Amino acid sequence: MNDQIIKKMQQIVGNEWVVTDTDKVSSYCEDETEKAMKPKVCTDCVVVKPANTEEISQIIKYANDQKLTVVARGGGTSLSGAAVTIMPSIIISMERMNKIIEVDESSLTVECEAGATLLDIVELFNQHDSLYFPIHPGDEGAQVGGMIVMNAGGVRAVRYGVMREQVKGLEVVLPTGEIIYLGGKLIKNNAGLDLKNLIIGSEGILGIVTKATLALKPKDKYSGSLLVSFNDESDAVKAVTEIFKNGIKPLAIEYMEKSSILRAAEDIGMTWPSSVGNVDLYFIVSERKEDDLYEMYEMIVGICEENNAIESFVAESTKEQRTLLEIRSHVYPSMQKNLVDAIDAAVPIKNLAKYMQGISKIATKYNVEISTIGHIGDGNMHNSIQTEDAQKPENYDNLADEIFKLVVECEGAITGEHGIGKVRNDKLKIQFSEKELSLMKAIKNVFDPNNILNPGTAL
Amino acid sequence: MNDQIIKKMQQIVGNEWVVTDTDKVSSYCEDETEKAMKPKVCTDCVVVKPANTEEISQIIKYANDQKLTVVARGGGTSLSGAAVTIMPSIIISMERMNKIIEVDESSLTVECEAGATLLDIVELFNQHDSLYFPIHPGDEGAQVGGMIVMNAGGVRAVRYGVMREQVKGLEVVLPTGEIIYLGGKLIKNNAGLDLKNLIIGSEGILGIVTKATLALKPKDKYSGSLLVSFNDESDAVKAVTEIFKNGIKPLAIEYMEKSSILRAAEDIGMTWPSSVGNVDLYFIVSERKEDDLYEMYEMIVGICEENNAIESFVAESTKEQRTLLEIRSHVYPSMQKNLVDAIDAAVPIKNLAKYMQGISKIATKYNVEISTIGHIGDGNMHNSIQTEDAQKPENYDNLADEIFKLVVECEGAITGEHGIGKVRNDKLKIQFSEKELSLMKAIKNVFDPNNILNPGTAL
Repeated sequence: MNDQIIKKMQQIVGNEWVVTDTDKVSSYCEDETEKAMKPKVCTDCVVVKPANTEEISQIIKYANDQKLTVVARGGGTSLSGAAVTIMPSIIISMERMNKIIEVDESSLTVECEAGATLLDIVELFNQHDSLYFPIHPGDEGAQVGGMIVMNAGGVRAVRYGVMREQVKGLEVVLPTGEIIYLGGKLIKNNAGLDLKNLIIGSEGILGIVTKATLALKPKDKYSGSLLVSFNDESDAVKAVTEIFKNGIKPLAIEYMEKSSILRAAEDIGMTWPSSVGNVDLYFIVSERKEDDLYEMYEMIVGICEENNAIESFVAESTKEQRTLLEIRSHVYPSMQKNLVDAIDAAVPIKNLAKYMQGISKIATKYNVEISTIGHIGDGNMHNSIQTEDAQKPENYDNLADEIFKLVVECEGAITGEHGIGKVRNDKLKIQFSEKELSLMKAIKNVFDPNNILNPGTAL
Repeated sequence: MNDQIIKKMQQIVGNEWVVTDTDKVSSYCEDETEKAMKPKVCTDCVVVKPANTEEISQIIKYANDQKLTVVARGGGTSLSGAAVTIMPSIIISMERMNKIIEVDESSLTVECEAGATLLDIVELFNQHDSLYFPIHPGDEGAQVGGMIVMNAGGVRAVRYGVMREQVKGLEVVLPTGEIIYLGGKLIKNNAGLDLKNLIIGSEGILGIVTKATLALKPKDKYSGSLLVSFNDESDAVKAVTEIFKNGIKPLAIEYMEKSSILRAAEDIGMTWPSSVGNVDLYFIVSERKEDDLYEMYEMIVGICEENNAIESFVAESTKEQRTLLEIRSHVYPSMQKNLVDAIDAAVPIKNLAKYMQGISKIATKYNVEISTIGHIGDGNMHNSIQTEDAQKPENYDNLADEIFKLVVECEGAITGEHGIGKVRNDKLKIQFSEKELSLMKAIKNVFDPNNILNPGTAL
């Protein structure tokens, strides 16, 4: 990295907040994307740790003048290469901008800097009597800014939606250096075009989020987990459909192939409470009153039994609930050594059965293992493609194309939560028309005429 | 209107669906904006009534080639001149495209053409066991397409948000004639930039919505209305704040100055159930269980009493509830003969008291009547500026500027539901920076390079 650039960065943020040592820098150049999918990483970068929005604006203005590539970095937990540097870049690490600014109980909002982590927020509201932040993607190291530009999801999307639904206001530094303010603590806001939602899910290519105001939800006093086992996957899917038809909205409904969940449990020396059947549904339920919680269990179990469930188990104690969560969280790590690609398409609930049958056919045709586990309650299944050596099998590109064509046939989106990043760019044309893509590219150009911000991502 | 244009329109949609008679045309050139605010109407227009999306695409392609102005028209219920024609225009009336296509109970969605009215949807779900569409702006003649591009609000936004939160998928004809498809029956969808939310609230300048998929909510079995009277407006505001802090979310909380609501009741020969105090809060509550409804009443009344409420009244029978709604709906008509401008700013709940005090000061300073009635539960107050003859008072522009500066000081939006339309364009700069506005204008140019679609609106 050019000395002049480093000197300029030191001038802006102070010497101690610029990292140039290659070893240290390289840990800022990667994210959690599977090895077989990860783009080629460039470590010829400088890491800058600004203290405030003003410093970010100065960095960006300089970079835009000099046409230098900038990548904003949060917790580095993304799974699609969005935070991977693929060319010499100024990496803006948000880690120092981690203040929680205000909890406003009348507007039901929390305002924080973009570098605050999910853990910071979870811990803050563990102490709160009546409010909490509902979104919980797996990794609590994720930062708020990253969660916003990646539109993070996770298991708890059934009742409250994803990150997009929680973002009320944003402060953003544009790729041209100006600071803009979008939205606010408002339920109604109809002035001008909606730039806020453009930034959400933009994967860091339209601007750098520096502050955010997020919506809070009332804490339910009673919560629990329910596990129901089925022999047949199509019965499990049918049960979920019926649950929604009956107006029941748990916080989460997870779908798990028995083999994957048992392997995860074994891996960490724990015991999964159900060993019968081939498929489990795992419900997280919360209610204001204890009676309602039991009623909810009964209704869900009733519907599942009508759809041939063979066993059900209520996890009431905190310890039992934690065991379920811990094993569920380990499914992905337990696959790692064989994992080629974790496809995270989302399809409408009514097309889930068709989608899952299609995936089975593709697995057979290409002779690969595709395990299916995921957020069935929001139609976002995770199809993990695995091989002996975690290397892409021959014809992998064709296999992936077939899956994404199936997704589009099922009226779905090729990514429900991980984003396009730098790993699915060439698949976008399967979901979008040329015109749709050209609009997106023209909007990128409006925001970032010199294409300095995270190029090669999202589009 | 030029004969060649008329002929071309007749070719596309058939002679019987093209209106050229000046009298008939002129009824398609206006909306519900107050007389004193309405822009100068141009009736040199042709009205075209397409049968399908394909015909709209043909009309637009021709208009774009010839650089002719096009205005899409829904129910004509907008209050900001968004649907008013201000230059010779092709008016595309959506009235024939009014089919409800599908109710999908597993995805909790309804799909319909953009010309379906709110009444069509309300009537459909009156018949439904368990689902309904929650958004209800005052006028049931509003069409779905108009409700989407104006991001309609109304009283029932406290629990479920506004139109934006209900729009899952869109079919849109672009100003360049292409048809695009955005979103779908998905809870998670992270592919590409979010064009769907750009279209929502775009006031018909980025494209013509032709089909939409909307979210449905479970119907609560028990509902009722609660009226609580206060002497002091600041006590009423405080009570609302406390209600939210306690995690209580009614469907609606309306704020009404006693004088306005009593005048409305008198005007239609009905009786408002409370005559004491200066201010009423009107709650619409719904719950899954009857016990919960009573508990909710008790909690709300309890909090109101702690904040000096002087009387409360529960409207339980359908008849009583209808009476309240009918009188509430008549507030706006009863002001009509004096109404200059209905300002519909939205501010965060915590700044409501400051905002209302500021409005009082401005009313005194300019010596005008400003009545305040509105959706206090979502911070969207309606400040109706009234004069003897419904003409703008001297210095009206300064008065309005002071109000909008106050809105911005209170971290609000200058319009919460009516939109910018053709009446507030010059006020946008009070809320947005030059850069923010230039981004919006550049996005308009990306979608509509020839500026044919509803020019002079929204920006």
